[in-house]
Amino acid sequence: MITHKFEHPLNEKTRIYLRVESLLRQLHLSSTFSDAQQYQLFFRSLFDLLEIFEQMQLKSELAKDIEKQRLTYKSWLNVDGVDHQMLQTLLSDIDNTHQSLMKAERFGQSLKEDRFLAAIRQRFNLPGGSCCFDLPALHYWLHLPLDKKIRDANAWTGSLQALSDALSLWLKLTRETGHFKNQIARAGFFQSDAEDANILRLSIPMQYGAYPMISGHKNRFAVKFMSFDTGQACTQDIEFELAICT
Amino acid sequence: MITHKFEHPLNEKTRIYLRVESLLRQLHLSSTFSDAQQYQLFFRSLFDLLEIFEQMQLKSELAKDIEKQRLTYKSWLNVDGVDHQMLQTLLSDIDNTHQSLMKAERFGQSLKEDRFLAAIRQRFNLPGGSCCFDLPALHYWLHLPLDKKIRDANAWTGSLQALSDALSLWLKLTRETGHFKNQIARAGFFQSDAEDANILRLSIPMQYGAYPMISGHKNRFAVKFMSFDTGQACTQDIEFELAICT
Repeated sequence: MITHKFEHPLNEKTRIYLRVESLLRQLHLSSTFSDAQQYQLFFRSLFDLLEIFEQMQLKSELAKDIEKQRLTYKSWLNVDGVDHQMLQTLLSDIDNTHQSLMKAERFGQSLKEDRFLAAIRQRFNLPGGSCCFDLPALHYWLHLPLDKKIRDANAWTGSLQALSDALSLWLKLTRETGHFKNQIARAGFFQSDAEDANILRLSIPMQYGAYPMISGHKNRFAVKFMSFDTGQACTQDIEFELAICT
Repeated sequence: MITHKFEHPLNEKTRIYLRVESLLRQLHLSSTFSDAQQYQLFFRSLFDLLEIFEQMQLKSELAKDIEKQRLTYKSWLNVDGVDHQMLQTLLSDIDNTHQSLMKAERFGQSLKEDRFLAAIRQRFNLPGGSCCFDLPALHYWLHLPLDKKIRDANAWTGSLQALSDALSLWLKLTRETGHFKNQIARAGFFQSDAEDANILRLSIPMQYGAYPMISGHKNRFAVKFMSFDTGQACTQDIEFELAICT
């Protein structure tokens, strides 16, 4: 059965985390410059990240959240029947990631100070603004040998490694708290309690031709399925899988 | 000798034409959805085009410019020694393109009326805004079979065919009016008259490590070469090729 996976954040901070994860993935995938257009996605992702860094103290939020996970897993050390060795390995992973995060520069600091990036950032968001006459320095850079461009890209993305590691760890541990269970949205509608959850994960069979519109906050949420073809709410029952991750 | 090519528009209208040409090229290259990221570039190009269409009466401007070229080439029919057959073929090309352009809808009209495109356009420019929870309908669409996505893309881009043909013709004929000549920018600086020109084309050896900053209008322009490494104006002489296209 072909399904589409769907994730929905239940608070604003997790919403930003998921966007940053998606941008870091795009940055990574486009940093090979394997076709003549990838640079667009690379710089767009980089500048989108800088915009998010300017709007939010991402580093301190993430450090707090990692610390919270550390305390939770530490408290498990006293629980009978827990695999102590696995738990110690995890706690040491969390410690290392937290330390690297605290040692890292303010996210995006060195990117903002990069003369080349600063010069092209302003015009990059113009509609069609990546023409050579709008961004002559970028146009020159694009003509440099591939290995030089990849070196530059690695230096830029390297400055985000501590963020990437910490965010990956937090999201991995958060996702692992949820377990997929079968659910039915009666007449296309489903609601439930969430108890301090951060992320909902859904797996929806494509055969319904439907996508979910989700509203909610950390304690309660509702899923309304919409028909892709009509744009209207579905009226049929829809069976799907749901995991609630805290 | 490795060179980088560079084009600079000498008026605002040509600036838009070159941006639209670049966006149409991106749209074409990304419409195969051959990797999981190309959709980003496809929709971004499409929405950038819609934004330009909203700011400018592109269709009537382009129709006037094509008509001007028609009159110029028609006047050549009376010149001795001209290849009449080639000229008639060209004039017939121009006529056909002009007619298709006049018959076309207002650029972007059907794209703006497309429910799916309208739904995703608003959020597409959020930093990192193409996550599934920001754009659930897009996320569903991305899971559809490749041939369905390509059919959709062809229908959307097909509505821009008359624009694409007319713009390609005008730019081709405009570029053909210029001929590359060797020039020297003494101490990195060059200026000259342009006589009603639309586009400057430059070919610059990469060995100088320099890119051009061009200012000017249809009758006069100046080229200042900048060092990529220092970001400062070059002080050495720079040999380059220049074509002035009217």
